[in-house]
Formats: sequence, C-alpha cells, structure tokens
Amino acid sequence: MQKVVALGGGHGLAATLSALRQITSDITAVVTVADNGGSSGRLREEFPILPPGDLRMALAALCADDEWGRTWANIMQHRFESDGPLNGHAMGNLLLASLWNENEDPVIGLDRVGQLLKVIGRVLPMAETALDIEGTFNTSTGRIVVRGQKEVATAKGRIESLRVIPENPQARLEVLTAIRVADWITMGPGSWFSSVMPHLMVPMQQDALLRTKAKKILILNLDATSSTTGEEFAGSTPEEHLEFFHSYAPELKIDYCLVDSSVVRNSVALDEAAAKMGGRVIAADIRKAPGSVHHDVSKLTLHLGHIMGPKLVG
Amino acid sequence: MQKVVALGGGHGLAATLSALRQITSDITAVVTVADNGGSSGRLREEFPILPPGDLRMALAALCADDEWGRTWANIMQHRFESDGPLNGHAMGNLLLASLWNENEDPVIGLDRVGQLLKVIGRVLPMAETALDIEGTFNTSTGRIVVRGQKEVATAKGRIESLRVIPENPQARLEVLTAIRVADWITMGPGSWFSSVMPHLMVPMQQDALLRTKAKKILILNLDATSSTTGEEFAGSTPEEHLEFFHSYAPELKIDYCLVDSSVVRNSVALDEAAAKMGGRVIAADIRKAPGSVHHDVSKLTLHLGHIMGPKLVG
Repeated sequence: MQKVVALGGGHGLAATLSALRQITSDITAVVTVADNGGSSGRLREEFPILPPGDLRMALAALCADDEWGRTWANIMQHRFESDGPLNGHAMGNLLLASLWNENEDPVIGLDRVGQLLKVIGRVLPMAETALDIEGTFNTSTGRIVVRGQKEVATAKGRIESLRVIPENPQARLEVLTAIRVADWITMGPGSWFSSVMPHLMVPMQQDALLRTKAKKILILNLDATSSTTGEEFAGSTPEEHLEFFHSYAPELKIDYCLVDSSVVRNSVALDEAAAKMGGRVIAADIRKAPGSVHHDVSKLTLHLGHIMGPKLVG
Repeated sequence: MQKVVALGGGHGLAATLSALRQITSDITAVVTVADNGGSSGRLREEFPILPPGDLRMALAALCADDEWGRTWANIMQHRFESDGPLNGHAMGNLLLASLWNENEDPVIGLDRVGQLLKVIGRVLPMAETALDIEGTFNTSTGRIVVRGQKEVATAKGRIESLRVIPENPQARLEVLTAIRVADWITMGPGSWFSSVMPHLMVPMQQDALLRTKAKKILILNLDATSSTTGEEFAGSTPEEHLEFFHSYAPELKIDYCLVDSSVVRNSVALDEAAAKMGGRVIAADIRKAPGSVHHDVSKLTLHLGHIMGPKLVG
C-alpha cells in the first residue's frame, strides 16, 4: 500500500480524497486553516479555534464505506436551517469546536471524529493555529489589499502577492512526517490563492515538500469563468496559476500537472510552465459535466490511478 | 436478566439510571419532554423538536463503561462557553437536534446516539411531541397559573392542579411495550410536578402502568428546603407528594416508596399515604451527603438492589 498525502482545502480537496480512497487507504489529508466565512468564520469569532469546515469536509470524504460511516458522515455534514442563531452551522463544525474547547490539541479532536467516522487515513490541519489569507491585487483602479479566504478567491484584478497572517505559521509534526514518508503528494484542486497556495506559505511544510522523495501531482482548477455560481474569479489561465505557484516555491519539483482538457487554451505555454517545475502536463477529461465547476470523482480516480501506476490501484 | 423501566427526567432520572445499570442491563429510560429552559428551551424555540436535554442526560448516564462510551458521553455533556450565541448549549443537545431535523421520528435519532455511546438499554421520550407543564397554585395573594418546567418546579404556593399542554399527548409504542413486559418500574426522583407527575398525564402511559404486572418503586425527593441551590421549592412534605401523585392515578398501585430517612418528619402520615397506593415506605440513607440535594448513586444501587432482590443483582 503506497502512502499518499493530499494537500488542499474545501470541496476540491474533498473530491481528490474521494478519488484517492478508491486507490489507496493510506491517505493523509492536510487541510488549509484560513477559512473566515460562513459557519467556520462564525465559530472562529466565537471561540479561539481553527476553522473547522474544510477539516470536516475532508473527514466526511474519507468516512468508512459502510452504514455507520456514511450515516455519521451525513450527520457531520448536516446544516442547521432556521431563523435563529444556529442557522447555517454544520453539525460537524460544532462537534469539532466542542472537542477543541475540551482539548487544546486540535489533532486529538480530529482523530476522535476520525474514529467516529472510521475514516480511511487521517485528516490534519496545515498549521497549529488559524490563519488569514491576504492578497495584493492590481486592479483598474489601483492596487488593493484583500483579506479573507473568500475575499481573495473572488477578488478581481491581477494578483501581485499573497501571504498568510500570521506569517511563518507552525506546522504540525504529524504533517511533516507524513510528507517525509509519502510515495505521492497531491495538491489541489481548489481556490488557487486561498486553498492551494497557502500550503507553500508554511515554511516547515514547504521545506518538507522539497526534501521528500514523494512524487508530486498538481491538480489544476476548472475554468471558473464557465461557472454558474461565480464563486471564484478565474482571472488567471492555468499557466499563470502554475507560474504563480512556482514563484512561491522556485526549487519545488512537480512531476505531473493534471488538468481538464477544456481549460487548456495555450498548450505550449502550459507545457512550458510545467516544465519549469520539472513536470509534465496530463490533459484529460476530469470535469463532472460540461459547464460544471466540479471535478468528477470517477474520472479523477481513473487518471490519478493511471499516474500512480497499476501497482497502487486496487 | 430482569427488565426495568425508569420514568423521570433531569438529574434525578440520571441518578436512578446510574444506579440501575449496576443492577441490570435491560433498562428503558422514559424521559419527560416538557423542559422549556436553558439550551433545550432555546432549541425548542429554534426548531420544531423535543427538548433534548433530559434525553441527553439519560443517554450519558447509560453510556458504555469503556473509554469510547465515557469519552463520547463527556462530549455529549460538553457545554459551550462563550460570549456568543452558542454559549450554554450542550453538545449532545445540538447532535440530537440535528438528527431530529434530518429524521422526523425522534426515536431514530435517540437510538443513533445510543449506538454512538453504546448505551446499556434504551432511552425513549415520554411523548411524541414537546409538552408544556402548567400548574395552578394557591398563594397568599390568590390563585396563580404557572407555565413552564422550571417555573412550576420553583413556584411558591400550594399546588391545586397540574396539566400538560397539549393535553392527552400521544405515547410512543416502544414505551408502552417496555412498560407491559417490565419486571420493575421506577419513578423519580426529580422535580415532582415537572419531571415525575407528567408521566401520569400521558393517558396511554398511565393505562399501561395500570395494566403491567411490573412492580413499581417510587423514589421520593430529598427535602429541597435544605438545598443551597434553591432550585426547587419544597413546599410539600413527602406524604403530600404521594397524595398528589395518588390523586392523578387513583387506581395505580405502587409497591415501594423509597425515601431518604432525613426527609421523614411524620412517618405515620407517610406510611398511610403509601398504604393508600397499596405500597410500603422504605426509609434509608440515599442522600449523597448531609445537606446535599443529590441522591447518592452507590446508596441508590444498594437499596434498589435490595428491593429488587438478590436474583437481579450482579
């Protein structure tokens, strides 16, 4: 059984995890902790805790494939709907918050929910403490500084720089160990600036990524301009995403860049951007349906399985 | 293994359950659903659900006696503390609320949490839907009508009548069956008017109590006048509690009235009140400590074990 570490956040990471669990059961999910919106944002305001939402989603994606695991995953994903103060809170966020209030070490609570869902693998936070994302964008009206996960993901303009606050956050030892011994590391898909890039901004984690012998797969985003939700601004091409990524980790070698064929406009530029990182582009159909903003789990499984090789499949 | 059904609510029922689990593992807890205060009251206002608090406490009292059961029981009992909207909510109340929002049948959610805690026995609600308690009291300034569990429990004056709203609530079939096949039924302790008496106000349940061959033990309250919390008004003597109980179920036979020796002021009157219901008084030391308002679980175990007979113990 080969070891896979999946870096990311939000729905993108959940899709990758749902695919990876078809391929291996030695999975460590490493999740961004910079969400400041919705249920997670409100819980961060009310308690001195990590934003639980992305961690909860990753746990649910790795739940045991039996009645118990699926039922408890559904309960964790339950969202309260009311005219009152609980409206919008996800049940699993509240459970993680209560566990973290009882025990300061967030990994103990995550492992506890992992036991409940009988998860395949383990879910860990990217950093010890909650972070904020801040980006500087050049817009038609000048330079603006945007703070917040959703705010950065939906900001319009050309991104100039990105940082996490506080800078140089502390990584978890469990994460560094998992990266060190991994056979494969996946990054993405997900909001590029707020879910994927932050993984390069934890110095100890970037260092571990540089040192590990694991092969690395970057899973690029779907073109959000075709999105009907308009959730993420797609002002960048895939090659721009790669270049921006490269600029924050110039020594980091990426082996494969998996991209949906439909978002490739300039395959020469994209190949060049991947080659700069020592990698090659694999363009394939990985979108759920034409126009969908979601990756298809079965297609991801197929192509990640191909990349990772037959020995790993099954 | 003899079958025991324990009727009650709140901390009193939890104490009885903690004792009964030392004696048998075939326990059905039947819990009042009239709480309108605190976390339960707020959840009842926000969602169309049963008040979860007393049910949660009963589940926690019956958790498996291993690391898993105790840990999850503690998590269910966790209370959020903050300056925000979650302050005061018990984690288990939120979990029950989310389960009930997902599935209208409250017993499915209760059984699910029971599975999580690997509870000994089963926890069931006294009625299908949330109830309110209303009492009429004669006070020095005239007759007053008081509504709400805590309001009734702490009302000063002489109680004249008591009712649940809506009247004639629907019982759960699971409860009626458990009462029918039980060997023993315990009632109390607990706020007499708001946790114990309401069990007589579900007509189908009173009917089942009349028909069952089970022996019945009424566990009387400690004298709350010695309470330092002042939570419950103790305007009634134990014999008055028995008489009030008798007046709402004149045909119901009670076999044993277990009472703490320290609250017996007039043993002749108390014996007479018990005899009217066909039962006898067992006065014993069942208080945690002098002045405490809590029953002692070990002492309850001892005396309930004695009453239920050596065959049941162990």
